[in-house]
Amino acid sequence: MEEKSAKPKAVLLLSGGLDSTTTLAIAQAEGFDVYAITFRYGQRHEFEIQAAKRIAQWAGVKEHAIIEINLRAFGGSALTSDIAVPKGRSVDEMAVGIPVTYVPARNTIFLSFALAWAEVLGASDIFIGVNSLDYSGYPDCRPEFIEAFEALARLATKAGVEGASRIRIHTPLIAMTKAEIIGRGNALGIDYSMTSTCYDPGQKGEACGACDACLLRLKGFADNGLVDPARYAANDLL
Amino acid sequence: MEEKSAKPKAVLLLSGGLDSTTTLAIAQAEGFDVYAITFRYGQRHEFEIQAAKRIAQWAGVKEHAIIEINLRAFGGSALTSDIAVPKGRSVDEMAVGIPVTYVPARNTIFLSFALAWAEVLGASDIFIGVNSLDYSGYPDCRPEFIEAFEALARLATKAGVEGASRIRIHTPLIAMTKAEIIGRGNALGIDYSMTSTCYDPGQKGEACGACDACLLRLKGFADNGLVDPARYAANDLL
Repeated sequence: MEEKSAKPKAVLLLSGGLDSTTTLAIAQAEGFDVYAITFRYGQRHEFEIQAAKRIAQWAGVKEHAIIEINLRAFGGSALTSDIAVPKGRSVDEMAVGIPVTYVPARNTIFLSFALAWAEVLGASDIFIGVNSLDYSGYPDCRPEFIEAFEALARLATKAGVEGASRIRIHTPLIAMTKAEIIGRGNALGIDYSMTSTCYDPGQKGEACGACDACLLRLKGFADNGLVDPARYAANDLL
Repeated sequence: MEEKSAKPKAVLLLSGGLDSTTTLAIAQAEGFDVYAITFRYGQRHEFEIQAAKRIAQWAGVKEHAIIEINLRAFGGSALTSDIAVPKGRSVDEMAVGIPVTYVPARNTIFLSFALAWAEVLGASDIFIGVNSLDYSGYPDCRPEFIEAFEALARLATKAGVEGASRIRIHTPLIAMTKAEIIGRGNALGIDYSMTSTCYDPGQKGEACGACDACLLRLKGFADNGLVDPARYAANDLL
């Protein structure tokens, strides 16, 4: 019988979407015990939190923290206020500028909480499923942002002062296309029907099929020659 | 009659303590309209939030946001869990290592929220009352931490991508002793009886007079030849 060995701990940002779910499977495949953290931050798409819970249970994470923060207090995004979510844009249109679905400083806030938990757990590793190819123009998904956060994290903590440890921010998806992410996830056995990607889902969590997130996702499945198993509001949008 | 001119906006972290209150007065003296942000983060010393409200009202800030975040979910600090707050330490003892009152990644989290609000407000300036001389050993009060956060902030936002604006993190107290801070605040007309500094206050908010924060504060007043107007649990501790 093998002796039970202590795996290294990693904190992982789990939104309940396709990217973070794939990142979770990658972190586990790399041998980490995963501590997943999900935020209820005033987003319209509360359904994604239910998805995150299902995924955390499916993956058998060590702990799943759901943290309440109210980004609605500040507004400024279509995801947390009454600004309309844009629909039906082409990939070229998405590539220009920063969309209204951008939530100010969201990844900075999320990574800060992950850092706090990592410090308490004694973990040196944080995983985030950001992606710089299909990144929809978000400033806080760029590699230079992640590098700056890693530099900050190494100064921000006890371990940073004592020189005992170095925080690493893992971004396994950063250089992958959506199609590559889905291909990798399928190879790792992910059932993507669990995941919730849509910025503007219906009452029962069905995806709209027309927001930037849905369109990028659908294209990723199509590029793999696959049908997206998620529930969509109208099949004729496919 | 003078024409009403638009002042630049600044977001300021207001804890309700001596340092952040002095920083607020300095920001206003420098000509900023202040948007104060205070966190209810599971700290033992809830009384400081009441102090922050009084101070924000006294100063006439433009807005005062009180943000709920639950750092107790992670634990790891005497300020948010049942770890005892150390009492009666000498300044030399405080200078060694990182005390148990350190809250993991607290300033990283606080500054991230300030950044989010600054972005929504269109503000480029954030004030934080950190201090590297009497800093009680907190890693996230060091100048190199602040510089790293500023570098991050310039990459994290829309303005950072578009090159339209540069976030500045102002730390007017960073090189001041506690005595100098109190001297400056007195010159700016601050009534320090409004402020709450103690890590472990009594039922009515009276300061313990023995934790690191109280001892540094008392020393600061004594060095100015002043009596601290705060309420202490026992005068014989003075």
